[in-house]
Amino acid sequence: MSELRKDPITGCWVVLSAERGLRPHPPDLSAVKTVPRPSFCPFCQGHEDKTPPEVFALRHGNSKPNGPGWRIRVVPNKYPALTREGELNPRGEGIYDVMNGVGTHEIMIEGPSHFTRPTQLPWDLFPDILEVYRLRLLAAAKDARFHYGLVFKNVGTDAGASLDHNHSQLIATPVIPHTVAEEMGGAQRFHHYRGRCIYCDIIRQELQEGRRVIKQGGHFLALAPFASRFPFETWILPKAHRAHFSSISGEELKELADILYQVLKNLDRTLENPPFNYVIHTAPFSEGETPHYHWHLEILPRVQRLAGFEFGTGFFINTVAPEDAASALNRNIED
Amino acid sequence: MSELRKDPITGCWVVLSAERGLRPHPPDLSAVKTVPRPSFCPFCQGHEDKTPPEVFALRHGNSKPNGPGWRIRVVPNKYPALTREGELNPRGEGIYDVMNGVGTHEIMIEGPSHFTRPTQLPWDLFPDILEVYRLRLLAAAKDARFHYGLVFKNVGTDAGASLDHNHSQLIATPVIPHTVAEEMGGAQRFHHYRGRCIYCDIIRQELQEGRRVIKQGGHFLALAPFASRFPFETWILPKAHRAHFSSISGEELKELADILYQVLKNLDRTLENPPFNYVIHTAPFSEGETPHYHWHLEILPRVQRLAGFEFGTGFFINTVAPEDAASALNRNIED
Repeated sequence: MSELRKDPITGCWVVLSAERGLRPHPPDLSAVKTVPRPSFCPFCQGHEDKTPPEVFALRHGNSKPNGPGWRIRVVPNKYPALTREGELNPRGEGIYDVMNGVGTHEIMIEGPSHFTRPTQLPWDLFPDILEVYRLRLLAAAKDARFHYGLVFKNVGTDAGASLDHNHSQLIATPVIPHTVAEEMGGAQRFHHYRGRCIYCDIIRQELQEGRRVIKQGGHFLALAPFASRFPFETWILPKAHRAHFSSISGEELKELADILYQVLKNLDRTLENPPFNYVIHTAPFSEGETPHYHWHLEILPRVQRLAGFEFGTGFFINTVAPEDAASALNRNIED
Repeated sequence: MSELRKDPITGCWVVLSAERGLRPHPPDLSAVKTVPRPSFCPFCQGHEDKTPPEVFALRHGNSKPNGPGWRIRVVPNKYPALTREGELNPRGEGIYDVMNGVGTHEIMIEGPSHFTRPTQLPWDLFPDILEVYRLRLLAAAKDARFHYGLVFKNVGTDAGASLDHNHSQLIATPVIPHTVAEEMGGAQRFHHYRGRCIYCDIIRQELQEGRRVIKQGGHFLALAPFASRFPFETWILPKAHRAHFSSISGEELKELADILYQVLKNLDRTLENPPFNYVIHTAPFSEGETPHYHWHLEILPRVQRLAGFEFGTGFFINTVAPEDAASALNRNIED
C-alpha cells in the first residue's frame, strides 16, 4: 500500500509509491530509476494479456473483453501510484499528516496500432478519447472516498512517458490537489471581489486583443496564456462558463476534439514533435456548477528543462513570449 | 528588457526572458532551445575575457581583476533572466499585472579548474563558496528594488545546467517568489496557532525519531524530509532558529560546509553522480529575525522525470521512502 504524506509547511501532498517504495531496509536502489521499458509494447493489439484486465473499452461488434477488436481500452496501471482497495485511515505521526494511498490510476490506451504521437491517430478517434475521459471521470466521481480526478497525457520521454504507445491517464485522489486548490482559491477571491469568473474575464480580454488567440470555434478558444510558464504553452477553454469537464455536450465534445487535434498538429509542426504534457483542470467532484471555477485543458510543451530557480521559487523563466508563440502557431494553422 | 508577468489566477510570476524572448514577429524558433554550449569552457582560468567583467572575486595575492589567480569569481550572467538597470514600472494590462524584468542574475564560478561536480573541488573551497553566497546576498539586499535573493546550483544537464564547470547562481527579484510566500504563509499560520516555529518542531521530532536523520553536527542537521518530493531529497537546517542564511557565523559556516560536502559526497556515491539542484530557502530581505521562518538548504536529486501529474496537481510521486533514503545514505557516510 502506498502512502500519502503532507508537507507540514506548504500543505502539498506527496505519494510514496507502493510498487517500488516503502520496502524494508536495505532499499532497492534500482527503484530510483523509472519503470523499465519492456522489449515489446504491452499496449498494442494482440498483447491484451500483458496488461491488467480492462475496466472499460470501446469495442467493435462482437469482440470480447481483453481480446482484439477495440478502439480504446482502459486498464488499471500495472505500477499504480495509488491503489483502489482499502480504507484511507488518515492519521497523525507527531506533527505530520499521513493517509493510505487509496485512489485509482487508470491507463486509457488510444488505438490498437503502435502510434507514438496523438497526431498520428485517425482524426475520428479524438471525440472517442474525450468521451472516454468523460465516462471514466464520472465513474471515479461515484466513489465517495475520492475528491478529485485528474486526466493527463505524457508524450515523449522528456515529458515523463515511460511507454510510447499513445495513452492517457486518470488518477483519482482522496484529497484536493494543491494546484487545484490554489486555482480554486484564486478564482474564488476574484469572484468574491468582482462578482465575475476570472476565466470568463480572460476569455473576454483575449478575444478583444486577439494577439494571443491561437484558434477558436463557436464553443472553444485556444490561447497562449498571458503568463505562459512554458514556451508555446496553450490553454483550451470553453467560451461558456462551465466548472466541470464532464458536463460537456456531444456537440461541444466534437468541436473540442477538432480544436485539440489541430492545436497538437500545429505544435508538432512548429516545434518538430516536442515532448509535452496535457492536463485537464476541472472542478473537484464535490463542487457543483460553481460560478468561479472554469474548466480548461492545459498543453505544456517540455522543450526547456526545469532547474533550481523554478524549484526554489515557483517562478518560471520562459524564453518565448506568448504573443510570438500564438503568431507562430497561427502561421502553421491548417484550416 | 525582460518582463515579469503574473498569472492572474494563482498569483505566480513568470519571467519572459529578455535575451531570447520578446522579439518582433516572426519569432526566432531557435530561441526555444536552451543556450547553446560553447566549444570551450568560458568559466576556466585563462578565459576570463569570455564572461562579462567580474563584480566580485576571491583572489590570490596581487592578481588582477578579470585575469587568472582566483579561487571564486562572480560575474553577471551573460544570458540574464533579469537585468540590473531600469525601473520596475509596475502596470496593468486589462486584468493582467506586469512589470519590467529588473533584478540581478549572477554566476559564482567555483574554482579555476574544470571540475564538473562540487565533490571534485578541494574540500577547503566549500567554506569560501558559502561565504561568497553570504556576501552576494547581503550586496543584493542593499538595493531597495529587490525583495528576495535566491541562491541555487544546477548540476548536470538533466537538472538544467547549461555549462558543466562548477558554479552557483544568485537571482535577486523585485517580488517575493510564490514558493517562498507559500512557505512563509504556512509557517506563519503554524506559529499563530501554536506559538512555535514549525521547522524547530520538525527538527525536534526528527532528532527524537532518528529514522530520517542523515547527518548532524553541533549546529546543523541533514535529514530526509517526511514528505520528500524527490527520491533522496535532503534538507540541511540550522538547529538554532534563524530566519536568514546571511546571519550565519564563521564557526557555523565551517560546519555547514563540512556537512554539505559530506552529504553531496554520499549522494554521488549512492546514486552514482546524479543530476541535482540545491536551493537556499531564506527569509525575504525586508523580514527581520521573524520567529516563524527558519532558513534551510534543499538538495533535490533529479533522477525521475516530472510528468503531467506533477504539473496538473502539484502532487509529487516518489518511489523511495525518505526513511530508506536516509538509511542508504547513512551506510555510505564517511566520517
